[in-house]
Amino acid sequence: MNKIEHIGIAVKSLEKSSELFSKLFGKAHYKVEEVASEGVKTSFFKIGENKIELLEGTNDDSPITKFIAKKGEGIHHIAFDVDDIQTEIKRLKKEGFKVLNETPKNGADNKLVAFLHPKSSNGVLIELCQEIKR
Amino acid sequence: MNKIEHIGIAVKSLEKSSELFSKLFGKAHYKVEEVASEGVKTSFFKIGENKIELLEGTNDDSPITKFIAKKGEGIHHIAFDVDDIQTEIKRLKKEGFKVLNETPKNGADNKLVAFLHPKSSNGVLIELCQEIKR
Repeated sequence: MNKIEHIGIAVKSLEKSSELFSKLFGKAHYKVEEVASEGVKTSFFKIGENKIELLEGTNDDSPITKFIAKKGEGIHHIAFDVDDIQTEIKRLKKEGFKVLNETPKNGADNKLVAFLHPKSSNGVLIELCQEIKR
Repeated sequence: MNKIEHIGIAVKSLEKSSELFSKLFGKAHYKVEEVASEGVKTSFFKIGENKIELLEGTNDDSPITKFIAKKGEGIHHIAFDVDDIQTEIKRLKKEGFKVLNETPKNGADNKLVAFLHPKSSNGVLIELCQEIKR
């Protein structure tokens, strides 16, 4: 694992929260992106070498809509940048972590992503992400 | 705000969780520190330019013990590195954020710290921290 790639925050209104985080950071988001397959709209801020990803659910089946219904708005996941997601998935499985999707899927921001179940990692939903080389 | 300084994760057992996160990162923590005034024991990992701070409550009044009783183990706060904590506190108050302690207090890892109420920041407990210059 190289670094924290981003922190994902579940929000009810991407528009309102983007404004709020603009005030927090003193600068605007640099990108808005929809990931239809995951039922989310996202807004990205850059801070140091990391990103903050705000996530709004776009339908009732969206994991973000469900998360907010259960826990309210707040931090949803931490994503770590990895060089080779398949190798990391294998390594972490061996270490006892529960991998939610062993076949990486396409995430926002040109990434292949996989998630570790919070139950195997101290209540923290962990995302592994590898940049897709074109 | 310069960068994310660390992410704080509330854990029941610092010993067990330090071992778990060692497996996740493939390396050991570099420091254990107790902040008696806050009722916490902490364990630090370095990842990229950020740190992960595991926090175990040392008594029933500890904010970490209370957090876990209410929400279970998981991400507790995000801390942002600032150059001048007083200036940031003033700026963020003006922007409508609720500052929990307007007089910065001593935190772990040689820092002056102040917190923003999660209700004013999308359910996210935000810590500002400024390194104490000796």
